[in-house]
Amino acid sequence: MTKKPDNKKSALHISKGKANSSNINQNFKYKRRKDLGVDDYIAGLLAGDRVILGRAISLVESQQAKDQLKAQQIIEKCLPYSGNSLRIGLTGTPGVGKSTFIDCFGQEILQAGHRLAVLAIDPSSQLTKGSILGDKTRMQQLSVHPKVFVRPSPAGASLGGVARKTRETVILCETAGFDAIVIETVGVGQSETAVHSMVDFFLLLLLPNAGDELQGIKRGVMEMADLIAINKADGDNITAAKLAKKQCRNGLHLFPPKPSDWVATAETCSALEGKGLDKIWQHIQAYRRQTTINGYFQEHRKQQAKYWMEESINEQLKSLFMSHPSIQQQFKAIEQQVIEGKISPFRAAENLIALFKGP
Amino acid sequence: MTKKPDNKKSALHISKGKANSSNINQNFKYKRRKDLGVDDYIAGLLAGDRVILGRAISLVESQQAKDQLKAQQIIEKCLPYSGNSLRIGLTGTPGVGKSTFIDCFGQEILQAGHRLAVLAIDPSSQLTKGSILGDKTRMQQLSVHPKVFVRPSPAGASLGGVARKTRETVILCETAGFDAIVIETVGVGQSETAVHSMVDFFLLLLLPNAGDELQGIKRGVMEMADLIAINKADGDNITAAKLAKKQCRNGLHLFPPKPSDWVATAETCSALEGKGLDKIWQHIQAYRRQTTINGYFQEHRKQQAKYWMEESINEQLKSLFMSHPSIQQQFKAIEQQVIEGKISPFRAAENLIALFKGP
Repeated sequence: MTKKPDNKKSALHISKGKANSSNINQNFKYKRRKDLGVDDYIAGLLAGDRVILGRAISLVESQQAKDQLKAQQIIEKCLPYSGNSLRIGLTGTPGVGKSTFIDCFGQEILQAGHRLAVLAIDPSSQLTKGSILGDKTRMQQLSVHPKVFVRPSPAGASLGGVARKTRETVILCETAGFDAIVIETVGVGQSETAVHSMVDFFLLLLLPNAGDELQGIKRGVMEMADLIAINKADGDNITAAKLAKKQCRNGLHLFPPKPSDWVATAETCSALEGKGLDKIWQHIQAYRRQTTINGYFQEHRKQQAKYWMEESINEQLKSLFMSHPSIQQQFKAIEQQVIEGKISPFRAAENLIALFKGP
Repeated sequence: MTKKPDNKKSALHISKGKANSSNINQNFKYKRRKDLGVDDYIAGLLAGDRVILGRAISLVESQQAKDQLKAQQIIEKCLPYSGNSLRIGLTGTPGVGKSTFIDCFGQEILQAGHRLAVLAIDPSSQLTKGSILGDKTRMQQLSVHPKVFVRPSPAGASLGGVARKTRETVILCETAGFDAIVIETVGVGQSETAVHSMVDFFLLLLLPNAGDELQGIKRGVMEMADLIAINKADGDNITAAKLAKKQCRNGLHLFPPKPSDWVATAETCSALEGKGLDKIWQHIQAYRRQTTINGYFQEHRKQQAKYWMEESINEQLKSLFMSHPSIQQQFKAIEQQVIEGKISPFRAAENLIALFKGP
């Protein structure tokens, strides 16, 4: 994740941006990058400055301790300004046309008067160099729009790390005035669960040949969906897409009601032809209205915050445990005994915990 | 969980039991209960003695430290004799007729030459006094059969505790020669996941009015099922049951293939009339054959052992964390700050971990 692309993009947009945003950019021009203080960041974010936003995200993504310290200070100060957005999760297998979909669907969001940030979670981005969104040219309309901010997936060894960075990036984007956030992920491992636990609405994109298509969707993802959109419902695919919609609706019908009381359904759309996207946006707006009235929207956010605290504690406890010298020395051997049935899993756990606690 | 019922039941069966089993019982008659040593237990279990099995399970279920110590010693010595059984998980909402189903379906298992143990996981049993299986009279045929051992759910505050006791009980039952184990649970909270992670085959019982019925099934349970059996397919219900079977098959078709390569399906049955149970047993046997050949059966057991070790470590780490004096003092307040959005979940987790690690 270099800082260059953001600078370039920002340079493109300065003329189109808000007046005060441009002013701030000019002020910062005369400061050396490393001189920016926490309050400079906050001022820049509150002014909706893209360069500052990009640099703040880079701090969040940095591995360096001093960057991390500053990032945490910025996040803390941003918290009171965050939360005022609609967070939409989007998933679908490679080839379903996520980028094209976002590029077109984003127009619906913009027409509704929102400022849109597009983020991504791709735990494999370290290997693929962030291929999902790395190539911003895939979103030709959005990537040049003054009210849109596009950021590829942060790199990271663990999904937990990548997810945390994205969650903090959401806070920064909201502080910078982006009140619609789309977080995209590809169906790899647990990344949908991570996205699902940080968004208000979860959208699953499928191809018209749903029978085969669903083979690629990880277990449980369909159950998370608040809406299934059958994309590429155009040309020769229209009949297949309609059938897929019916199949999906039947399938969704078999699931129990969601805690949000929202009834998930399926729609067809064509990002290529710009068809059906308005219906999808209507569903999302209906979801927001319904869950705001029944209180789920707010309650869900609180539960998500608790969830992330618990997840983070668990992750840190595990890492504390696994990095303990006695555990490092003996874990593999004891695990092997468990696999071979020579020691019960519970006894093994107790022995390891005893080692961890020390004498 | 008193020890009396087991004594009574055993007294009923001594005459029908194996010869060496009776001998051992006679030897033990002259020993005071508390005098039984670990080796006595092992000898009794290996002889298939029900009284000893019941008492060993009571040790596993005991809250007392000295009982637990002895229980762990017994479990360790049983491990080499365990594993030679087919473990079947069974779930379904109250009213689906699980007890009647097991009572009839057990006959199929017995006719195949197996010795059958019926266990249960019901985390609510502390409140309901083990109502699922507490009343053994619900299984009239099985509860008096000499080759069957029925044990109600252990009581326990946490699902983790209840699940652990049941998993250890499986080891004891297998050592006592029970080579078919049915573990029943009711659809409350995470109990299906716990059962799923300790069995080879997972059977979901549904009522013929599947549309409504599925409303009561917890998310994800349907995906866990290796087979769905629509019970009560008798009398006026036959048409509805056939429709439910079709709906379920369509629904299952939407899920991706299982790691076992087993294709889950649905069947109708009537435990009341004893119909369709042979087909269910055939599916289970086919599953065992297929997964033994492709290696999944054995590999799955290894993964389950690892899973339980990890779960147990996580649970103990959490308990270590939550019982730390500084955490006890500050957890609630910090959690509240997270819920109110005054501190980020990640920062809160770090602060708490720092308290846990101490100065």
